[in-house]
Amino acid sequence: MRCIGVMTSGGDSPGMNAAIRAVVRTGIAKGLTVKAIRRGFAGLLDGDIREMGVRDVSGIIQRGGTVLQTARCPEFKDPKGQRLGLRRLNEEDIEGLVVIGGDGSLRGGLALHNLGVPVVGVPGSIDNDIADTDMSLGVDTALNTILRALDALRDTAASHERAFLIEVMGRKCGYLATVGGILGGAEMIAIPERPFALEDVADVVQDAYIKGKNHALIVVAEGANHGISEIADFLREHQVDFEVRVTILGHVQRGGRPSAFDRQLGTRMGVAAVKELLAGSSGVMIALSGRKMTPVSIEEATGRQREVSGEFLEIFSYVS
Amino acid sequence: MRCIGVMTSGGDSPGMNAAIRAVVRTGIAKGLTVKAIRRGFAGLLDGDIREMGVRDVSGIIQRGGTVLQTARCPEFKDPKGQRLGLRRLNEEDIEGLVVIGGDGSLRGGLALHNLGVPVVGVPGSIDNDIADTDMSLGVDTALNTILRALDALRDTAASHERAFLIEVMGRKCGYLATVGGILGGAEMIAIPERPFALEDVADVVQDAYIKGKNHALIVVAEGANHGISEIADFLREHQVDFEVRVTILGHVQRGGRPSAFDRQLGTRMGVAAVKELLAGSSGVMIALSGRKMTPVSIEEATGRQREVSGEFLEIFSYVS
Amino acid sequence: MRCIGVMTSGGDSPGMNAAIRAVVRTGIAKGLTVKAIRRGFAGLLDGDIREMGVRDVSGIIQRGGTVLQTARCPEFKDPKGQRLGLRRLNEEDIEGLVVIGGDGSLRGGLALHNLGVPVVGVPGSIDNDIADTDMSLGVDTALNTILRALDALRDTAASHERAFLIEVMGRKCGYLATVGGILGGAEMIAIPERPFALEDVADVVQDAYIKGKNHALIVVAEGANHGISEIADFLREHQVDFEVRVTILGHVQRGGRPSAFDRQLGTRMGVAAVKELLAGSSGVMIALSGRKMTPVSIEEATGRQREVSGEFLEIFSYVS
Amino acid sequence: MRCIGVMTSGGDSPGMNAAIRAVVRTGIAKGLTVKAIRRGFAGLLDGDIREMGVRDVSGIIQRGGTVLQTARCPEFKDPKGQRLGLRRLNEEDIEGLVVIGGDGSLRGGLALHNLGVPVVGVPGSIDNDIADTDMSLGVDTALNTILRALDALRDTAASHERAFLIEVMGRKCGYLATVGGILGGAEMIAIPERPFALEDVADVVQDAYIKGKNHALIVVAEGANHGISEIADFLREHQVDFEVRVTILGHVQRGGRPSAFDRQLGTRMGVAAVKELLAGSSGVMIALSGRKMTPVSIEEATGRQREVSGEFLEIFSYVS
Repeated sequence: MRCIGVMTSGGDSPGMNAAIRAVVRTGIAKGLTVKAIRRGFAGLLDGDIREMGVRDVSGIIQRGGTVLQTARCPEFKDPKGQRLGLRRLNEEDIEGLVVIGGDGSLRGGLALHNLGVPVVGVPGSIDNDIADTDMSLGVDTALNTILRALDALRDTAASHERAFLIEVMGRKCGYLATVGGILGGAEMIAIPERPFALEDVADVVQDAYIKGKNHALIVVAEGANHGISEIADFLREHQVDFEVRVTILGHVQRGGRPSAFDRQLGTRMGVAAVKELLAGSSGVMIALSGRKMTPVSIEEATGRQREVSGEFLEIFSYVS
Repeated sequence: MRCIGVMTSGGDSPGMNAAIRAVVRTGIAKGLTVKAIRRGFAGLLDGDIREMGVRDVSGIIQRGGTVLQTARCPEFKDPKGQRLGLRRLNEEDIEGLVVIGGDGSLRGGLALHNLGVPVVGVPGSIDNDIADTDMSLGVDTALNTILRALDALRDTAASHERAFLIEVMGRKCGYLATVGGILGGAEMIAIPERPFALEDVADVVQDAYIKGKNHALIVVAEGANHGISEIADFLREHQVDFEVRVTILGHVQRGGRPSAFDRQLGTRMGVAAVKELLAGSSGVMIALSGRKMTPVSIEEATGRQREVSGEFLEIFSYVS
Repeated sequence: MRCIGVMTSGGDSPGMNAAIRAVVRTGIAKGLTVKAIRRGFAGLLDGDIREMGVRDVSGIIQRGGTVLQTARCPEFKDPKGQRLGLRRLNEEDIEGLVVIGGDGSLRGGLALHNLGVPVVGVPGSIDNDIADTDMSLGVDTALNTILRALDALRDTAASHERAFLIEVMGRKCGYLATVGGILGGAEMIAIPERPFALEDVADVVQDAYIKGKNHALIVVAEGANHGISEIADFLREHQVDFEVRVTILGHVQRGGRPSAFDRQLGTRMGVAAVKELLAGSSGVMIALSGRKMTPVSIEEATGRQREVSGEFLEIFSYVS
Repeated sequence: MRCIGVMTSGGDSPGMNAAIRAVVRTGIAKGLTVKAIRRGFAGLLDGDIREMGVRDVSGIIQRGGTVLQTARCPEFKDPKGQRLGLRRLNEEDIEGLVVIGGDGSLRGGLALHNLGVPVVGVPGSIDNDIADTDMSLGVDTALNTILRALDALRDTAASHERAFLIEVMGRKCGYLATVGGILGGAEMIAIPERPFALEDVADVVQDAYIKGKNHALIVVAEGANHGISEIADFLREHQVDFEVRVTILGHVQRGGRPSAFDRQLGTRMGVAAVKELLAGSSGVMIALSGRKMTPVSIEEATGRQREVSGEFLEIFSYVS
């Protein structure tokens, strides 16, 4: 193998730049030519590809987002689009590919693997919804952003009798809401994995009031069975004794300077991805498994839903 | 004058603790006894009052919110409640009062002034809606919080073609939205002072798309003539070429470690308030006027609406 | 077991408050009385002990340092002091003890274990110098603080041709310097585990100059075989082509809001410590081992030196 | 006037990018061509000059340092170098120049003004040592960085009995040390404007110990009459009852994301500089004077030493 490609695809997440830097520099240190494919699979089809030097990735590790950008690419879902992708890789003499992204992006990489291209994935997703890896790139930074918001809400909560509802990311996976709620001192977490009734939220809020707390904090995942506006309306209609206030963090969670943990995870995953390619692996994704970087099958990892850890739900029951 | 009181009232804002610390320590340095009234006018009526020492305000300057807490107090709007407040001050031998808070709180202080109590106000409001002072306590910290959010949105905006709408505080005053928009690189600001049509927003978003920008950022003040959900719905219905995403910062803007500017402003205003009381002033609020701390009439300051500076609107037209 | 004690001892580290909160709340949830021993072993000997309720640990998880304080206690190194400690525990009916701290503190706990007190340790040390746990409490926050400093240095380095030397903690262990150097973009790391000659540093600096870089960043651990002032003097005497500037972070690394990772680690370790005590364990420390919390022997963990991982030194050789 | 130039020179400071963005966009909005001169006067002599578009300054306002870089230029101190500079400006048809930088840089601009080039300065210096402006660019961000460090030191100080010495910038001007000391809760400030004896520091430290404080914080400006190492050595020799620990922030103070205040100041100054050039002014620097941007004579501003405000020293005596 003399030349490899690297791309980011799907939703961006903090730490992707650390992974790009590690792939480029490790590849070059190993004697490879490294080419960057911009704008994910869309850029691949357009041939938006150029060689990277060691200095091209200087000063990017501390930046949020991805310097290679990403884009949606419906054409690549099609076998025809995938064959065009293969052709572009051949035109550029790219003999191996590192794909950094979430579930859908990893499946895109799998399609190329099935066409014979050596492909190694790096899991990037702030939701932590990718199975078979302890953590995905971006989760730790998003958690730190969520905690900064929860800390700020608690500052002001000390002065007023209020119920704060805060929506965090997580369409299918309640990881951010659960861990954010434990570490941010929430009274309740509302997550997709555990449906609840609107009356439950009202009970928690009233219970906090009756216990003499001066506020109640509820962390709501995007994908909870009742949305944040629905909950807020219900609480107001049922006249709970706290005034209700809403925060929706939205894409603020995707940005920000990557944390030490995400820079380290991205760096280690990027190094490991190049080594796996050189060792002849393909169709695998680099996973954090305990303290080790381990290759796991993309097919298996993307076929299943990651579940929120029972340990965290138990911890929440103790410390909340 | 031998004994003064200090309270925070209404919405809390970062920097109030710096003001409390300055009032307590300056008062003591000047030979006064300083008593803290907790939970604003509600605490005054309840007699929730205790003497403060120099060490009681150690380690509070870096904390958000107010260590004296605040609360609403409908009874104090009534002459009967105000007379009870006067009685409580007399019971505690409090001969002068520093009231730290927004418009409503300053008017509460004015009521006591009209009953003969020497009262000096310190303007605290993250909205910067108090007239006759260049800046109120908490505005600078709130702006820094807003910019951190806007920077994070731009990080992720570099990867995706999206329109981000972000709601910031400001029911009557567009200061935070205007200055946040200028310094955070927004394409448009939606403020109460300048009504707009929903079509205008759609035009700005489409214009950004056509110019080749990869995103559009719109900062919307709470009190804008169209709310953020209404705007988002309109853009989606009219199928602008960017996907639309919403962030509502809410009370996150009220909390957080106070910035250097707010600590300095709170400290200077607290020192000045004690000096004004000792100089025999009453019914005045400490204002930042250029580089100086100046007493201005509470009656005049609270009777008018502060306007967003024409200089900022002009600057926005150049740099956006 | 009906009553347990909890203390922090030795150097404080961010995340200790999360551990205290978890011990108190989990203990109470399990039906135990939980007593806090203030100021470590010194407070134990003085009987500075009081029962904690669920609300006593509200609002502490986001604070640096330890609300229980720590202190040095030479008397406790003595068998006589240790027997007095045992007596104090008996006086307070404390039947099990959680000790949160570094090497020396864990050994203090071991002494009580040897006198028959059930003791479980929680490793707290920003240096990451405790063996047998993947991470100690406080390391992640310290790394984030170091990266913020390195990012700031690189901001200004882009404008000037300069060599920046920065000293970070680590008397015996180069973990912070190594990982900080990898993730902060350093040209060289100087750590206790790998002695170097002053000429080596000068070579790295000159090499960076000749390659056309506009700066060189050197991260120096406290315990490196040449100190930061010695290195700076040498570089200046040998007139390297960059101007030399020095930063010594010092105890700034010990403070700051704990990161999400340290809050999580402290919480999980605190919960696990209580469960281990209830399960009848003693003389063990809770270790992070991969994704699990595992009890390991304090005797074994404190008898050995932790080594900097070969993986990191390899990674540094690729990405620096 | 059809074409203007903009450069940054001397030590960089946070907010310079905001000023560059404002000059470029305001210039273009006013119908001018705007050219960037890279690396200060060195780049001018080398002809390192290129035209800037509106998009060239996108996404820079949140970055520390200066995208135009700076460099030292001994040749420009010479009339011959200055005449070469004039020639370069003529070659590029630059009819007016905005110089962003400190004392020395502004005097460089004055030299070109004296040769007939319209020149307007923008004061950038984190030390706040430039006379005739209330604040210079970068001071507020540096203060926030210093406060973050002081807050972290106080976190850990709550656990240990220690004296912390921290060195901050300020060779001739004690502004950062004074205001940082007031807002960061220091026991003493050591500044160039007020020489002190080493015994004074020892007295303050011992006094804090005797009063029962658990720490003492001393903020030392670079240019104080005794250096930080000298003070630390003295305290240790005289065996004060606190252990002594040293932090030297160094160039960390120059970097970091610019604060809201510095972004605003840079933006307003940049806009005002272009308007002054168009109004025919030259030889002036834009000053913050109260709430207004005002042109002041560079000759007068650079000829005098700025003094630390008596108001701050008085405040320190009350609140410390």
